[in-house]
Amino acid sequence: MRDFSQDTSALALNTATLGHNLEGHGAGWSPERLIDACTERGFGGIVFWRREIGTRAAQIGERVRAAGMAVAGLCRTPYLTGRDAGSDDEMRGSIDMAAALGAPVLTIVTGGTEPGTTGLGESRKRLADRLARHVEHARAAGVRLALEPLNPMFGGNRTCLFTVRDALDLCDTVGDPQIGLAVDVYHVWWDRTLGESLARAGGRIFGYHLCDWLEDTRHMLLDRGMMGDGVADLGAIRAAVEAAGYAGHCEVEVFSAADWWQRPPEVVLDTVVERFRTVC
Amino acid sequence: MRDFSQDTSALALNTATLGHNLEGHGAGWSPERLIDACTERGFGGIVFWRREIGTRAAQIGERVRAAGMAVAGLCRTPYLTGRDAGSDDEMRGSIDMAAALGAPVLTIVTGGTEPGTTGLGESRKRLADRLARHVEHARAAGVRLALEPLNPMFGGNRTCLFTVRDALDLCDTVGDPQIGLAVDVYHVWWDRTLGESLARAGGRIFGYHLCDWLEDTRHMLLDRGMMGDGVADLGAIRAAVEAAGYAGHCEVEVFSAADWWQRPPEVVLDTVVERFRTVC
Repeated sequence: MRDFSQDTSALALNTATLGHNLEGHGAGWSPERLIDACTERGFGGIVFWRREIGTRAAQIGERVRAAGMAVAGLCRTPYLTGRDAGSDDEMRGSIDMAAALGAPVLTIVTGGTEPGTTGLGESRKRLADRLARHVEHARAAGVRLALEPLNPMFGGNRTCLFTVRDALDLCDTVGDPQIGLAVDVYHVWWDRTLGESLARAGGRIFGYHLCDWLEDTRHMLLDRGMMGDGVADLGAIRAAVEAAGYAGHCEVEVFSAADWWQRPPEVVLDTVVERFRTVC
Repeated sequence: MRDFSQDTSALALNTATLGHNLEGHGAGWSPERLIDACTERGFGGIVFWRREIGTRAAQIGERVRAAGMAVAGLCRTPYLTGRDAGSDDEMRGSIDMAAALGAPVLTIVTGGTEPGTTGLGESRKRLADRLARHVEHARAAGVRLALEPLNPMFGGNRTCLFTVRDALDLCDTVGDPQIGLAVDVYHVWWDRTLGESLARAGGRIFGYHLCDWLEDTRHMLLDRGMMGDGVADLGAIRAAVEAAGYAGHCEVEVFSAADWWQRPPEVVLDTVVERFRTVC
């Protein structure tokens, strides 16, 4: 494992950590101010959300690279399954935005259970079919698609993939190297089979997301912990991810409406850097 | 599979479905009134919670059997791991209460992560050690101990077992036939490996709990769905449980603070029977 006790070049900020950084929401900083704040602190990358980018994808991407950082990814495609699934046009648009931004990876939260069905079989079939329709476009755009399995509490309306194994099985079904997965400790920390699944994943790990699972998690979506404040074994998970061959960014993504989103963004960023150096 | 289109003798009510049926809480019925209401509707069994029993365990157990039903189980031991773990005395007391009630099975929700640790290793070691100290007492009392894996959203403060596989691995560690597991659809419906784990479990399945996973689950603990209102494939899960050899009760356990607990208990019980006949 690389020694990150000093070097934070592998550290990337997901803007959700600052309450999505939209105007009037969370930090409310412009992308430019956010980029400067990350550069000053030695971050190596930033991951934006589509709603923050608008029509300025190319401009923002250039600004990140001019500051010496990388756009590490883009969150995220529309849902591809379930009641709230987005259109193929929206899916293509999200791939195009990632390309314009210079984001090498576009994250996929799959969406939930197909209307009128129970279990996961039909939903996963539709997911595979929809992905297969977009892999050529993604390849041409130079954008890899990362399926993110979610904690099983998000079954029903948000995901039909719950474990790294689920995501890999879906990758196998589609069978295209443009499709891999993102590993988020919030979603997978509890999985005893994680090590063997990550070894199976190998080069198909396109992203690694950091936060912590709080002992008392009070809200399913918006009560993530800062690294070191929870019960996830961050060292073991990172070791397994890197043993599988992953050498990309460690993307900090702390949804925390009642705690970290209430703090000054400078304090949040300083804390992210300090925790990355000491507990990740 | 047995034909339950008419016969509801396999149907058991977990009193949590009526808001725990404590005075001033949920239905607020006495155990006697609850027993009569279940008998009238053809239930085959009842599962109580310790707090409802007080010092009347033997009396209530007799009353259930006099009505032609079975005490199908007792909820539950104290936590055995984590910050909120109970004492060995309390654990023995819960076994004794189950014996006095005539409950053949006592459910275990393990408790969370051991203080000062991350990951699950230390917690599961302590869990195995504590269980091993109680198996002889449980055997002498004629009470089997059923480890209930919980949905991974309950990691941290409630459980250190998340899947049937996790529970079986723990059973193997202790290695005593007095210890098995309980399968609750709310906790395991999402698990693609469930079928193979249940086949491995075989005769170690001591309980099967029914409810449904709502497409929009708004509260981690108290927003369970009535069977047929959610996205779990209840037919497939029951088939797998029975294929593994389980022939015990189907225990309906619907924690639903905002919905079913607000309805008249008679309506809830009638609905349970109707849904059991039609969708389970």
